Amino acid sequence: MDERAALRLLSGELEAAGDDAAIVDGLVVTTDMLHERTDFPAGTTRYTAGWRAVGASLSDVAAMGAEATATVAAYAAPTFDRDELLAFVRGASDVCDRVGTEYVGGDLDGHDEFTVSTTAIGRTDDPVRRRGARPGDVVCVTGTLGRSAAALRLFDRGETDRANDRFRFDPRIDAGRALAPHATAMMDSSDGLARSLHQLSEASNCGFAIDSDRIPIDDAVFEVADGDDVLELATSFGEDFELVATLPEDAVPAVRDATDASLSVIGSVRDAGAAITMDDEPLADRGYTHG
Amino acid sequence: MDERAALRLLSGELEAAGDDAAIVDGLVVTTDMLHERTDFPAGTTRYTAGWRAVGASLSDVAAMGAEATATVAAYAAPTFDRDELLAFVRGASDVCDRVGTEYVGGDLDGHDEFTVSTTAIGRTDDPVRRRGARPGDVVCVTGTLGRSAAALRLFDRGETDRANDRFRFDPRIDAGRALAPHATAMMDSSDGLARSLHQLSEASNCGFAIDSDRIPIDDAVFEVADGDDVLELATSFGEDFELVATLPEDAVPAVRDATDASLSVIGSVRDAGAAITMDDEPLADRGYTHG
Repeated sequence: MDERAALRLLSGELEAAGDDAAIVDGLVVTTDMLHERTDFPAGTTRYTAGWRAVGASLSDVAAMGAEATATVAAYAAPTFDRDELLAFVRGASDVCDRVGTEYVGGDLDGHDEFTVSTTAIGRTDDPVRRRGARPGDVVCVTGTLGRSAAALRLFDRGETDRANDRFRFDPRIDAGRALAPHATAMMDSSDGLARSLHQLSEASNCGFAIDSDRIPIDDAVFEVADGDDVLELATSFGEDFELVATLPEDAVPAVRDATDASLSVIGSVRDAGAAITMDDEPLADRGYTHG
Repeated sequence: MDERAALRLLSGELEAAGDDAAIVDGLVVTTDMLHERTDFPAGTTRYTAGWRAVGASLSDVAAMGAEATATVAAYAAPTFDRDELLAFVRGASDVCDRVGTEYVGGDLDGHDEFTVSTTAIGRTDDPVRRRGARPGDVVCVTGTLGRSAAALRLFDRGETDRANDRFRFDPRIDAGRALAPHATAMMDSSDGLARSLHQLSEASNCGFAIDSDRIPIDDAVFEVADGDDVLELATSFGEDFELVATLPEDAVPAVRDATDASLSVIGSVRDAGAAITMDDEPLADRGYTHG
């Protein structure tokens, strides 16, 4: 059974689960586990690891349109080095500060591979789900896409300072709150834009028409592309933790007024029978399948 | 740096951390990571693993005197077997049912060793801390001690059904709620009674005088002891997830009326200068150091 099938199985068992976070009793709750070999390239500092791990969970809270309440992490490593541990905690705390919440601690654990499990908790009375996109809505994304793809190339090149910088990101709590009153469907782009659109399509039973010219590609992608398809890197690599939302076009100005994050309109929602296209060509369901 | 030093370092960095769970904004939050090699002996079913992992986090919620709101788990394994995954989810859900809360799902992750990270969230307006024990208070424990020690022996003997049965436990949410209005200090016994008393002593700046005759030793311990010191198994092995609390003696009947769990008075709180003793002999700070 692959991970997506297993996740569907888990969701089928659990009423409250699904979407980017579970919803229970006015809270949203989300948990993720990251491993050194698959999630933290050589050169990733523990400060960046703490920021990124906790940030990934906060991104799921943002995708529900919730405010962030608290985060915790379980930190497992072969040895506990004081400087590494402090750097991790500072990264975790700093990303929480960035979005007005608190890193409140966690568990430590001996383990042969550096592994982090993070949980974020948020509050909302009116969570935004993946279902609900309506034909005629526009599709928006926050920020820029391709930061993580670019970071990996920079790690490969040994430009670790710049890579670490790109590997950290602002969880879009503020933009999520701004989008929440208007968004008909929302999720984060952690599996890449292409896969996010397919997941929204499945949940909302709709098609999408995307205009590649309007996709906000991160500057660093152009720099590192090295002959590769820039658009492919920006849309299929994923791990950017931006929000992908659908909303009525006339609500876009109000959202832009309510958040400092940039918001790009990249296309529109089509009827149930319609395909998912980019520039009128079918957009394949490919991207990062997360562990 | 060993785990206890690392945990102290983490706690020093984080105002809300410490105790069995972090406290933030009317919520208590706790996270734990468990690994197959160190935490799940051969023969542990995935049902038991789900129950035990989620139960361990619920025990930390209980130790704060909180009610349980929700739990999540990140499940990492080399492969995702449908039956194993379902069994895990059912174990996690069943232990939540037992204490009136919900398992709301989590994350799945490919990893070379079966690893589970669980988070439990609870609510209380008045959490019970580890500090606050007063000379003259009595010391109580819920349930019986030594279940997990006995379970490990049963796993070793190949009596896996009985071992799995002993390895599951009722998180003491109900007893914690009953104790909360009266307890001056509380924690769970996951590191063993001896270590719990040392931790309470450090937090509350007090001594303890324990009477070994009054320690409620699980029947299974006598059966598996095989010449070993029964009292040692019951007090130092740990992982029993019972509550250890201090409270005024005259409050004991009210607590007993308010919970179905058994409550044993095992000794009393002494002044700051006093030692931690069992039957007037010093009780060493030994037990299970948890990952």
